Amino acid sequence: MSKKVAVIMGSDSDWGTVKKTVAVLKEYGIPTEVHVMSAHRTPAAAAAFASDAKKNGFGVIIAAAGMAAHLGGVLAAQTTLPVIGIPLKSAALEGMDALLATVMMPSGIPVATVAIDGAANAAWLALEILALSDEDLADRLDQARKDMAETVAKKDEKLQAELNA
Amino acid sequence: MSKKVAVIMGSDSDWGTVKKTVAVLKEYGIPTEVHVMSAHRTPAAAAAFASDAKKNGFGVIIAAAGMAAHLGGVLAAQTTLPVIGIPLKSAALEGMDALLATVMMPSGIPVATVAIDGAANAAWLALEILALSDEDLADRLDQARKDMAETVAKKDEKLQAELNA
Amino acid sequence: MSKKVAVIMGSDSDWGTVKKTVAVLKEYGIPTEVHVMSAHRTPAAAAAFASDAKKNGFGVIIAAAGMAAHLGGVLAAQTTLPVIGIPLKSAALEGMDALLATVMMPSGIPVATVAIDGAANAAWLALEILALSDEDLADRLDQARKDMAETVAKKDEKLQAELNA
Amino acid sequence: MSKKVAVIMGSDSDWGTVKKTVAVLKEYGIPTEVHVMSAHRTPAAAAAFASDAKKNGFGVIIAAAGMAAHLGGVLAAQTTLPVIGIPLKSAALEGMDALLATVMMPSGIPVATVAIDGAANAAWLALEILALSDEDLADRLDQARKDMAETVAKKDEKLQAELNA
Amino acid sequence: MSKKVAVIMGSDSDWGTVKKTVAVLKEYGIPTEVHVMSAHRTPAAAAAFASDAKKNGFGVIIAAAGMAAHLGGVLAAQTTLPVIGIPLKSAALEGMDALLATVMMPSGIPVATVAIDGAANAAWLALEILALSDEDLADRLDQARKDMAETVAKKDEKLQAELNA
Amino acid sequence: MSKKVAVIMGSDSDWGTVKKTVAVLKEYGIPTEVHVMSAHRTPAAAAAFASDAKKNGFGVIIAAAGMAAHLGGVLAAQTTLPVIGIPLKSAALEGMDALLATVMMPSGIPVATVAIDGAANAAWLALEILALSDEDLADRLDQARKDMAETVAKKDEKLQAELNA
Amino acid sequence: MSKKVAVIMGSDSDWGTVKKTVAVLKEYGIPTEVHVMSAHRTPAAAAAFASDAKKNGFGVIIAAAGMAAHLGGVLAAQTTLPVIGIPLKSAALEGMDALLATVMMPSGIPVATVAIDGAANAAWLALEILALSDEDLADRLDQARKDMAETVAKKDEKLQAELNA
Amino acid sequence: MSKKVAVIMGSDSDWGTVKKTVAVLKEYGIPTEVHVMSAHRTPAAAAAFASDAKKNGFGVIIAAAGMAAHLGGVLAAQTTLPVIGIPLKSAALEGMDALLATVMMPSGIPVATVAIDGAANAAWLALEILALSDEDLADRLDQARKDMAETVAKKDEKLQAELNA
Repeated sequence: MSKKVAVIMGSDSDWGTVKKTVAVLKEYGIPTEVHVMSAHRTPAAAAAFASDAKKNGFGVIIAAAGMAAHLGGVLAAQTTLPVIGIPLKSAALEGMDALLATVMMPSGIPVATVAIDGAANAAWLALEILALSDEDLADRLDQARKDMAETVAKKDEKLQAELNA
Repeated sequence: MSKKVAVIMGSDSDWGTVKKTVAVLKEYGIPTEVHVMSAHRTPAAAAAFASDAKKNGFGVIIAAAGMAAHLGGVLAAQTTLPVIGIPLKSAALEGMDALLATVMMPSGIPVATVAIDGAANAAWLALEILALSDEDLADRLDQARKDMAETVAKKDEKLQAELNA
Repeated sequence: MSKKVAVIMGSDSDWGTVKKTVAVLKEYGIPTEVHVMSAHRTPAAAAAFASDAKKNGFGVIIAAAGMAAHLGGVLAAQTTLPVIGIPLKSAALEGMDALLATVMMPSGIPVATVAIDGAANAAWLALEILALSDEDLADRLDQARKDMAETVAKKDEKLQAELNA
Repeated sequence: MSKKVAVIMGSDSDWGTVKKTVAVLKEYGIPTEVHVMSAHRTPAAAAAFASDAKKNGFGVIIAAAGMAAHLGGVLAAQTTLPVIGIPLKSAALEGMDALLATVMMPSGIPVATVAIDGAANAAWLALEILALSDEDLADRLDQARKDMAETVAKKDEKLQAELNA
Repeated sequence: MSKKVAVIMGSDSDWGTVKKTVAVLKEYGIPTEVHVMSAHRTPAAAAAFASDAKKNGFGVIIAAAGMAAHLGGVLAAQTTLPVIGIPLKSAALEGMDALLATVMMPSGIPVATVAIDGAANAAWLALEILALSDEDLADRLDQARKDMAETVAKKDEKLQAELNA
Repeated sequence: MSKKVAVIMGSDSDWGTVKKTVAVLKEYGIPTEVHVMSAHRTPAAAAAFASDAKKNGFGVIIAAAGMAAHLGGVLAAQTTLPVIGIPLKSAALEGMDALLATVMMPSGIPVATVAIDGAANAAWLALEILALSDEDLADRLDQARKDMAETVAKKDEKLQAELNA
Repeated sequence: MSKKVAVIMGSDSDWGTVKKTVAVLKEYGIPTEVHVMSAHRTPAAAAAFASDAKKNGFGVIIAAAGMAAHLGGVLAAQTTLPVIGIPLKSAALEGMDALLATVMMPSGIPVATVAIDGAANAAWLALEILALSDEDLADRLDQARKDMAETVAKKDEKLQAELNA
Repeated sequence: MSKKVAVIMGSDSDWGTVKKTVAVLKEYGIPTEVHVMSAHRTPAAAAAFASDAKKNGFGVIIAAAGMAAHLGGVLAAQTTLPVIGIPLKSAALEGMDALLATVMMPSGIPVATVAIDGAANAAWLALEILALSDEDLADRLDQARKDMAETVAKKDEKLQAELNA
C-alpha cells in the first residue's frame, strides 16, 4: 500500500486553504492525515510527529504556515522524509514573509517550497514523489496532465466560438 | 539500481553554483547526468529531455536558472517526475527575480523550490525523494543528519574552549 | 493586408483584463486571434503556435500571464516575432512575481514587457510596431495621441469650470 | 533601406552598458545613432528628437536610464514609434527603481521594457521589430536563434566531455 | 501678495486624493491653480506650464501621479521652482512604483517627495516654503502645529476618561 | 542677506556623502552650518537646534541619515521651516529602510525627501527654495540648468565624434 | 508591586489594533497606562513621558505607530527602559514602511520589534520581561504556554473528529 | 548576582557579527554563555537549552541567524524568557529573509527583533531588560547614554573645527 501523506497546518484557520491540498490527495486515494500543529505553540508535538513519521508509514509531510512560517523547517529538522512547504498569505506583506521563511533553508535541511497559498500544488508534488514507486499513480498523473491540456484546449475552443459568434 | 537524477542548468556559467548539487549527489553514489539546456535558447531540447526523462530512467530533475528563471517550469510542464528548482542570484535584484519565477507556479505543475543559490539543498531534497524507495539511502541520510548535528556540537565545544581559554 | 496579432492568455480567467487588449486592436481593425494556451498545461500547443506564427501571417504575439508568468518567454523562445508580455496581478505579491518573470529575460530572447495588468498598452505597442510598415495606421496612431491630449485638455477645462463655479 | 534605430542614454556614464546594444545593432548592419540626452537636463532636445524621429527616418527608439528612469516615457510621449526601455541598475535598490519607472507606463503610451541592464535584448527586440518588413533580416534572426541553440548544445557537449573525462 | 501654488495631477481620476492638497492650501488662503496635465498625454502643455510658471507668478508646483510617475520630474526639468511630488497608489504594487519614479531623481533636478498618497503634506510643505518670505503665514503655521499638539493632547485626555470610566 | 542652511547628519561617518551637499551650497555662497546630531543619541540637542533654527536665521534644514532614518522627521517635528531629508544607504537593504523612514511622514509634518544618497539634490532643492525670495540666486539657478544642458550636449557631441571617428 | 507598562500609540485611530495589547496586559493584572502621543505632533510630550517613565514607575514602554514609524525610536532615545515597537500597517506598502522604520535602529538605542500589527505579542513580550523579577507572573506565563498547546491539541482533536465523521 | 545571558548563533560562521553582542555584554560584566546551535541541525539541543534556560539561571536569550532564520522562534517556543532575535544578512536578499523570518512571529510567542546585523543592539536590549531589577546596571546604562551623547557632541565640535579651519 502507498505511503501516507501528512498535512500539517499551523492553525485551524488555515483550513480554508489547506483543504485544497487534502482534496487533491483524496481524489487520488492517498491515505492522508491532517493535523493542526504549531512550530511555536506545540513544538514538542510537531517534533515528535516528524521524528516518528517515517516509522509510522508516512512518505511525505506537507506543512502550511503563514507569517514567520517556521513549520516546514521545524518538521524538516526532525526527519529525512521530503517536507513540502506551503507559504500562506496573511494580513500583511502579501505572503512574502511566509515565502522567505519557508524557502530560504540552510544547506542540509531542504523544504520543497511551492507558491504562496499553493495548496493544490503541494498535493501534486507529493503525488509526483509517491508515483516514483507506484506505477499506477504515475500513469494517473500522466493522464491528469493530458486532461489538463484538454481542458485548456476546450476553453480555447469555447472562446473561439464566443468571439466568432 | 537507483533512478538517475538529471541536473540541468540554463547556462554553463552557472556551474560554479551547480557543482555543489552534483558533489552531494556523487557523494551518495547517485547516477547523475548534468546538462546545459536553456528554456529559451534550446526549448526543444529541454522539452524533449523532460518528456523522455521517466522512460530514460530518471527519477528527479533539478533545474538551476537565474533572472526570469523559467527552466524549472518548462521542464515540469513536460513530465510528472518531481522537478526541483534552484533560483540563481544574478547581476540584479539579489535573486528575487529567479525565486519568484521559479516558485510561483500555477496549480497542477509544481516546482519544488529551494533557497536562492541553494544548490546543495536541491541535491539533499532529491536524495530524500529517492530514499523513499531505497532503505539503504534512507539510513545514510539519517546518519548524515546525525553527523551534521555532531559537527555543530563539536563547533560549539571548540567555541567554548576558545572563549574560556 | 496587415499582419495579424495573436493574443494568448494563460487562463480563461484572464479574459477580464485581456479583453482590453482585444478592444484596442479591434478598434484599429487589426486582424486578431485570441487563444487560451498555457506555458505549463499546453506547452506543446503553445510552442507550436509560436513556432508557426510567422508563416501563419502573424506579426506580433501578445502574452498575458500571472504568477511565475512564463508564457511570454516560452513563446519568445519559439519565434523571432516580437513578443509583448503583460504581467498579470494575481492573488499575492501585487503582480511583482509576474512582472519579474516576464521582464527579466536572458540575452537573445527579449519579451517587450508592459505594465502590470497593462492590457491596453500591449495593444498600443503592437499597433506602433505594425504601423512601421502601414502609413495609414501610423497616421491614425498620431491622431489618437492628439485625441488623448485633447481629452486631457477638456478634462482640465471641465475642472476649471467646476473649481471656479 | 532599413529604418534607423536611435539609442538614447541619459548619461554618458551609461555607455559601458549601452555599447552592448550598439554592438548587436552594428552586427546586423542597422543604421544606428547614439545620443546622450536627458529627460531632465535636456528635456527640450529629447522631446524634439523623439518628435522628429519618424520623419528623420527612425523606426525604433531605445532609451537607457537609471534611477527614476523617465527617459523612455518622455520619448514615448512624443512619438508613436515603438520605444524600448532599458532600466539601468544604479548605486542603490538593485535596479528596481529604474525597472518600475520604465515599465509601469499609463495606458496609451507604452514603453517596451526589457530586463534590468538588458542592453543586448533591447537591440534584439529592435531587430525583431524591424524584421517584420525586412525578410532578409528576419532570416538572419532565425539563423541567430539556431546559432544560439547550437552554442548551448556545444557547451553541453563540452561539459559532458569534461565530466566524463 | 503671496506667490501662487500650482497643483497638477496626471489624471482627473486622481482628484479624490488631490483635493486634500487643495483644501489645505485654500484654508490658508493661498492662490491656487489646479490642472489636469499628463507627462505622457500632454507633454507639451505640461512643459509649457512649468517653463512659464515662475513668470506667471507661481512659487511652488505640486505634482501628483501614479504608476511610472514621471510628472514631477518632467515639470522639474522645466523650472527651477521647487517641485513637490505626491506618489499615488494605483492598482498594483502598493504605490512603490510611483514612490521610486518620483523620488529617485538624478543630481541637479530634485523633486521634493512626500509620502505615498501624502496629499495634505504636499500642501503643508508648500506652505512652509512660502512662509519663508511671509511672516504672517509663518506665524499661522506655528499656530497650526500648536493646534495639532493640542488636538492630540485632547484625544489623549478623552482616552483616559474612557479607559478610567 | 540670505537665510542660512543647516546640514545635519546623524553620524560623522555620513560625511563622505554629505559633503556633496555642502559643496553645492558653498558654490552658491549660501551661509551653511554643518552639524553631527543624532535623533537617537542627542535627541535634546537635535530638538533644540530645530526649535531655534528659524530665530537663528536658518531658512532650510537638511537632514541626512541611514537605517531607521528618523532625523528628518524628528527635526521637522520641532519647526515649520522646510526640512529636506536625504535617506542614506547603509550596510543592508540597499537604502530602502532609510527611504521609507524618511518619506512616509504623517499628515502635517512633511519631510521633503530626495533620492537615496541624493546629497547634491538636497542642496539644489534648498537653493530652489531660497531662490523664491532671492532673484539673483534664481537667475543663477536658471543659468545652472542651461549649463547642465550644455554639458550634456557637449558630451553628446564628443560621443558623436568618437563613434564616427 | 509590579512595574507599570506604558502603551503609547501615535494616533487614536490605532486603538482598534492597540486594544489587543491592553487586553493581554489587563488579563495579567499589569498596571497599564495608555496614551495617544505622537513623535511628530507632540514630540515634547512624548520625550518628557519617556524621560520620566522610569522614575514614574514604568518598567516597559510599548509604542505603536504606522508609516515612517518613529515613535518607538523617539521614546527609546529618552530612556534606558526596554521599548517595544509595534509597526502598524497603513494604507500603502503593507506595513513594510513601519517595520523598517521601527526595527532598523542604530547601535546603542534598540527597539524590540514585534510583527506588523503584532499588538498581542508586544504585550506578551512585556510580560516576559516583567516576569524576570516576578515569579508568580513567570509561573502564569508558563501556564499560558501550556494552555496554548492544549488549545491547539484540542483543535487538532476536533479536526480529526470532523474529518473522520 | 545577575541572571545570565545566552547568545546562540546558528552557525560558527556568524561569529564575526555575533562577537559584537558578546563584547557589549562583557563590558558590563554580564555572565554570558555563547553557543553554536542550529534550529535545523541540532533541534533537540536547541530545544533543550531553551527549555532549561530559566532553571539554569538565564534571564535573556539572544539568537542570531540568517536566511530562513528560525532560531529565535524555535527557542522562544520552548521558554517564556525574553528571546531577542538578530537577523543576519546572508549571500542574497540583503537580510530581508532573515528579518521577516525573525520578526513576523504569531501571537503568543514573541521574538524581540533588532536590526539586520544589529548585534550590539541585541546586547543593549538585553542590558535594558536586566537593568529592570539591577539598579546599578540601570545607572550605568543611563551613564552610557550620556557618554554616547557626549561622543556625538565632540564629533560635532571636531567637525566645526575642521570646517572653520
